Parts: sequence; C-alpha cells; structure tokens
Amino acid sequence: GKLLKNKVEDIIRKNFMLHGFWEVECPAIMPKIVWEASGHYEGFVDPIVQCTKCKAVFRADNLIKEHTNEKFTAGDFEKMESIIEKKKIKCSRCSGSFGAVGAYNLMMKTTIGLDQEAYLRPETATTTYLLFPEYYRFFRTKLPFGVFQIGKAYRNEISPRQGVFRTREFTQAEAQLFVLKEQKNVFDKYDEIKNEKLPLVSWQEQKKSSAVKELTLSDAIKKGFIKNKAYAWCLYVAYKTIKEVGFADCVRVRQHFPEERAHYAEDAWDIEIKTERFGWFEICGVHDRSDYDLRRHASFSGAEMQVGKEQVHILEIAFGLERPTYCLLERAFREDKVRSWLHFPMGMAPVDIAVFPLVKKDGLSKKAKEVFALLEKDFVAIYDETGSIGRMYRRMDEIGTSLCVTVDHQTLKDDTITIREISTMEQIRVKVNDLKNVARKLIEMEIEFKKVKGN
Amino acid sequence: GKLLKNKVEDIIRKNFMLHGFWEVECPAIMPKIVWEASGHYEGFVDPIVQCTKCKAVFRADNLIKEHTNEKFTAGDFEKMESIIEKKKIKCSRCSGSFGAVGAYNLMMKTTIGLDQEAYLRPETATTTYLLFPEYYRFFRTKLPFGVFQIGKAYRNEISPRQGVFRTREFTQAEAQLFVLKEQKNVFDKYDEIKNEKLPLVSWQEQKKSSAVKELTLSDAIKKGFIKNKAYAWCLYVAYKTIKEVGFADCVRVRQHFPEERAHYAEDAWDIEIKTERFGWFEICGVHDRSDYDLRRHASFSGAEMQVGKEQVHILEIAFGLERPTYCLLERAFREDKVRSWLHFPMGMAPVDIAVFPLVKKDGLSKKAKEVFALLEKDFVAIYDETGSIGRMYRRMDEIGTSLCVTVDHQTLKDDTITIREISTMEQIRVKVNDLKNVARKLIEMEIEFKKVKGN
Repeated sequence: GKLLKNKVEDIIRKNFMLHGFWEVECPAIMPKIVWEASGHYEGFVDPIVQCTKCKAVFRADNLIKEHTNEKFTAGDFEKMESIIEKKKIKCSRCSGSFGAVGAYNLMMKTTIGLDQEAYLRPETATTTYLLFPEYYRFFRTKLPFGVFQIGKAYRNEISPRQGVFRTREFTQAEAQLFVLKEQKNVFDKYDEIKNEKLPLVSWQEQKKSSAVKELTLSDAIKKGFIKNKAYAWCLYVAYKTIKEVGFADCVRVRQHFPEERAHYAEDAWDIEIKTERFGWFEICGVHDRSDYDLRRHASFSGAEMQVGKEQVHILEIAFGLERPTYCLLERAFREDKVRSWLHFPMGMAPVDIAVFPLVKKDGLSKKAKEVFALLEKDFVAIYDETGSIGRMYRRMDEIGTSLCVTVDHQTLKDDTITIREISTMEQIRVKVNDLKNVARKLIEMEIEFKKVKGN
Repeated sequence: GKLLKNKVEDIIRKNFMLHGFWEVECPAIMPKIVWEASGHYEGFVDPIVQCTKCKAVFRADNLIKEHTNEKFTAGDFEKMESIIEKKKIKCSRCSGSFGAVGAYNLMMKTTIGLDQEAYLRPETATTTYLLFPEYYRFFRTKLPFGVFQIGKAYRNEISPRQGVFRTREFTQAEAQLFVLKEQKNVFDKYDEIKNEKLPLVSWQEQKKSSAVKELTLSDAIKKGFIKNKAYAWCLYVAYKTIKEVGFADCVRVRQHFPEERAHYAEDAWDIEIKTERFGWFEICGVHDRSDYDLRRHASFSGAEMQVGKEQVHILEIAFGLERPTYCLLERAFREDKVRSWLHFPMGMAPVDIAVFPLVKKDGLSKKAKEVFALLEKDFVAIYDETGSIGRMYRRMDEIGTSLCVTVDHQTLKDDTITIREISTMEQIRVKVNDLKNVARKLIEMEIEFKKVKGN
C-alpha cells in the first residue's frame, strides 16, 4: 500500500514541478490566531447531536440524509434540529432522543510550549500561505508564481468511514497559484492548453442531467462555465495529473453548486472518479480562493501580503493521496480461472520488477542475484527464490508487479533472460546487458511489450 | 531547502530499500495507552524550572551546564534542585529565584473524537512496532525482517534552539530490524560486510581519548565493542547511507555511555558529523532496543507479539532528515574573489541542471526551451533567460546547481550545447542528442567531468 501511495505522490510531485510549482514544507501545528485568520476556527465545523440517553454522538446532517429527503443548508443548525424533531429521528443504538444540534470543530487542539493554544492543520494550504512575503522575494517580485506542499492534514472526524476515503490523518498534495486579479485573464500558459478537452459538468448543467460532456477549455470559457484563463489552466493541470496517475476513462470534472462551496471559495470544481464501491468520489478539488486568504492573514498578522495596492488571488489544486491510491487498487483487480492479479497502469505498480532463478541449483541462483543487483538501484525490485517458478509468478501477480525476469539454463549459455508481462503473461527474451534499458523503456511506456516481442 | 531535504530523503529511502527494509506509514496520533506501553508517557520528560518572579521557564539541566561543572544524572531532579540552590543560579531575565525542578513531558497532547486522550508521536518507531503481527504474516513468518517509516515526529521542546537541529516538528527516517535473540549472532548479511572499516569510538575509549580509529567490524566484535553481528550490520547500513549523502570525512561512530542511553536501549551508537557551528552532532542513532518494545506492547494490548515462546528483539537505525540537510549546506559554502557558491556532492544539489540561452534573440530562446523540455522530466531542472549569461550563472552558483547548459549560436549550426560544472567552471560541448545521457552519468557519478572534457 505504501509503495503504491509513493507512486501516486511521485506523479503528482513531478506534474506540479513540470508546471512550474516549487515545493515547500511548513509546520502542521499553528497557533490559534492562524486559524482565526483562515476562518477554520469559526467555520470548520460539523453539526453534531448527542443521544440524551446513551451519549452516542452522530453527525446531524448524515442522520437526516439517512432518514428523510428533507432539504437543509450546511450551516442551518436550527433547521436540522427541527427536522430531527419533526421526523422523530432517534438514536440507532438505544432509541433515545437527541439533544440540540451543536457545532463540532474538526480541528485537533494541542498546546505549544507551556500554554499556547494551537491546532493541527486541517489542510496544508493555510500553512503554505503564511510564507507569501518570502515567496514574493524568491520569485523576484514577479507574479504569477506557484508553490506546492505535500504533507499530512488532521481532522477530528466524528465518524471516520468509507475506508481510506475519510480518515483522521491523511496526506494532501496542494498546489497554490498566486496571481493578481487582472492576470487571471492575461495568462500565457492558457494559450498552450486552451484546445484541450475536459469532461466538464457545470452546476447549471447538473440541474438538467448528470451526463458528462467533453468540452474544450476555450469553449467552457465562452459559455461562461469557467470564469477565467488562469483557473482553466489549473483545471487542466489537475486533470492531466489524474490521467497520468492512470485514470483515463471514469473521470469527470464537476462544478460545485454555489451553496456547496467552502467558506473561502469563489469557484470550485472537483475532479471525480467513478468507484465501484462508493460511486463518484472527489479525488481533487480546484478552488478559486479569491483574495480571501492573504487579505485575512495580512489583517490578523499585520504582515504585508499584497503587491502595492493590488490584492493577490490564490487558485488552488488540492489532491488527497489516499483516495487515488484506493481507486488504483479497486480498478486493478482481475481474476480468471488460472489466477487473480492486479493490473496497474504500467509504472504505477508498487513493485516494478521481480527477478527469479528458474531453479535454485546449477548456479542459477547466483546468476539471478547478479541480475537483480543490476536492477535494484533503478527500480523498486524484488528478488525471490522460494518455491516453484509458478508459485513465484503467482505471488507477483497478487501484488501486481509489472515485469518478472527469470534466469534459466539458457542464461548461462547466452546471457539472455526472459521478461514476462503481468497481464498477457507473454514473455520476451533479451540480453542481460540490455535488460535495464528495456525494462526502463517498458515501465516509462516509451516502448510497448508487444513491439519488443515482435522484434 | 525543501529540494535539498528531498535529496537526503531519497538517498536514505533508497539505502533502506537496497538493504531489504520495506516502507510503511503509520498514524502520528495515538491514544494514551500506546505511550504508556512505549514508556514515553512516564519517561519522555525534561527537567524544568520556572522563575518564581517572571514565570520564565528553563531546562534545569541546560541551566546547570551553563553555570557549573557539577555532575548529575539525567533523572535526578533532587540533585539538580540542590545544585541550582547551592550555586545560586538565578533567572537570566530578571534575576529571580527558581522554584522546584519539575518533570515536563515532551509529548504534545490532543483529543481523538470527543474525549479520548491522545498524543502526537515523539518518534515514528513506536507507531511502526504496533503492526508487528501484520509484518510477521507479510514476511511469511520468517525472521529476521525489516521495515522503515519516514514521517513527522513532534516534541514540545521548552526551548527550540540550534536552528533546524532542535525543532518542535521534524522528519524522521527510522528503520527497524526485527530479529530473534539467537539470530543476532547468526546473521548472514554480516559476512558480506565484516571487513568494512568504520570510524568507531567505544564508550570505554572515550574515557581515554576522543581520537577516532578506523576499525573493521569483525575487529570491533572481537574486542567486544560491538556485541553482535546483526547490530554490526545495522551500524554499517547507517554509516554507508551517511557516506552516500555526502559525508565521507568528518564522520565518527560514537557509542553512548551506559548512563546516556534512552530507557529502551541495550546498546546505542550515534553517527556524528563534525559541524563548524555546533561541533560534533548526532545525525543518526543505532539502537539495540532488545525485546523491550514488543514485550511492553504485547502486555498492554494483549496482542501476540512474539514468535512461539521467543521474544523478538528490535535493532533500530534512526535518522533525522533536517540535521544532515543542514550539514550539507554548512559544508557546501565556498567563496573566492569572483563569486560565492555552494559545492554539493554531485547529485545532492537541490537543482540538478539549469538551461539558458546565451541571449534571448536569434531564436536561441526557443531552442533553449526545447533543450529544457528534454531534461525536465528526468532531473530537477530550471529554465532561465532573465539577465546576462554571467548573471544567470551566478544565480545558479548561489543555489549550488551542479550543471549549467547554455544554448549559443553554434547550437543552431551543429546542435551542440555547452555544459558547465559549478566548481571548476570548466565547460564541455556535447551533442543535444547526447545531453540527457551525459547529464545523467555525470550526476550519478558514472563518469567524471574531467574525463568527458578530455575526450
């Protein structure tokens, strides 16, 4: 699992870097005032109710959705309370009645030093923003510029659920584009990608149908679905990254309804993947946070966070790492009469390549270890010699290892080995000298397995 | 800074993997009982005193060391109190008197859900150990086996100090070898490395002199400095990793005095680097934690954490990432009459390679961007075209970029570019087609710059 998650992280990091974002790392714990400034201290709350009898605690909004179709808006605690009363919703554990709907802040509290009240970050973004004055110097006072941070965020969920989709600790990879308001529509990089097609669903269209339409970004801007060029480019970067992780079909880019947006968002679209188990699920959020963050942080801290008289806007690409990792796993599972295996997109398997001797005797073991030594520095590689060759292949099938290299008696004669591809189980024979190069090209998809075989 | 830290992390991860450790990821927040089991709840404390007048808080042990040569042991609070009284040590801010020496736990406290007392991990190790039953299955019930974890740890230091050497949040990279007691001296991998020489200083020798002696591991075992083969191998892995990060000289491997060891340690050696600013400083600790951890966790949790009737011992290689990152920076600084620059070991610079056009006009800018596009996927690469060529070189000197590629008018004629090496400022001219390969070999130190130039 961790090796798979590393692959997802690598792809996202690489894509952010290729699009000009620079990596930073900031603390996870920040004093209370930071979260007052960001709005999380006041606004990052879930509505909860407690059973008056057994003291069990539930999310009020989830309770209502499970029991009725009554509508309510996210912050309207009184409305929720009246629905719970009217519909006689009771505790599922003891049938007790519920008390009032209360605000439950999701941030985890701690103390810095002896007595400074502090909170663990519920998102990396806020911690990234505080360094704006340093970025401004680093990028030689020229906007737009971008930075990103990959790290843990912490949310004290009342009821963690849906496997790794909602946990109290999770890893975010969030890129932030800092841009002046008038630069949002004078954005050079947009011109290179304006004809790219994305599977967009605007909020107006969602009211009519949930069908996904492929639309070029320039058309989406013309139709008014997307408000500016810089934001269109961010959507493209997010979508391209998701595709490289390995989700080509099964993706849609869905706009939030105005009432669905977070407290800081002027516009928000989610990249969603269709999962078998949970339906459509958000994998990445792209947010136009306007000048909200820097304006607030400047006002609470007294630091200069604007450029002359101009407010700096932030566009954000926010990935979680656990969700795409789960989706890769869910979509990889295959079975037939012979075996079950995980078919990952090439390059995304937790282990790239395994090396076995056909049998341990006759010096094959020694030779196989030499071959392994050629590969282990450049790939995530495994050496195995325990059990029959069939058994060793099955083990690699079960963890989705893309390529299996076998050293056999012919290897000792002509210094060639076989490479087996996981999905077709087809084999090619190549020179040991060429192995590293061929394996690299196969994994980076510069060449196809079938074509090597053809030669 | 972050890019440099990433390079350090990559080297450590790669070395752990090459030595057969598998990566895991565990939560940073754990319920109180976990820390009771690990011993941190009771034992992970600093002695502190508060000024009775101005309420400032200090570490009692540090205060005493600053003012006197009086000796005391780490846990003896009464002794410290009596020294402070006897030596009339007063508050440095207001000259007030100090109250009693108290125990201050370094763990940061928080709450899971509504009311479960929990703490942020002060080291990754404990969180790694809890999964022992899963590892035991994963490694097909065969010991020894190894896992590692890279992630944040949190310590509520009363007085963070010495730059990044002591911060409240820091990144650890800790490898754990699980081994049965009798396997500690029947350890195959030891045979491959027993003749390696390490700059060892045992605790007995430290009493005589601080001189570092190069000693083979087998001699160190014969002399009784190192107690078992598995531990000797762990020391080797740690030392080899530190060398690959770029510290060849300036390293020593120093054994803890018996009274210096942590509560769980049966034996402990630190890999230390000689810094200009702080003197010798611990970069990595190698600990024989005996069966302490699994025995305690089994007893507190009721889970099975032994193999049959045998206790499982743990040997640990514990790196911090910030300290070697700082040491790389400190050792890299160079200046002469012309410029100042950072000379990192090849491959360790935050940015591997930069690409410039000699001038922006004559189509050189366009060509340079094409060359950059060839490199940016495989290296940490920068494109720059702002300012004179000299200015662009200086900027790269200041951040230590190993190689600078320049596109000039000759490039348009014969498709060659120049590569400049940072330290000598010497240049070679190579075909654009060969650039990626040559750059890769230079950075991985498969070839030397001088030799390419010679051809």
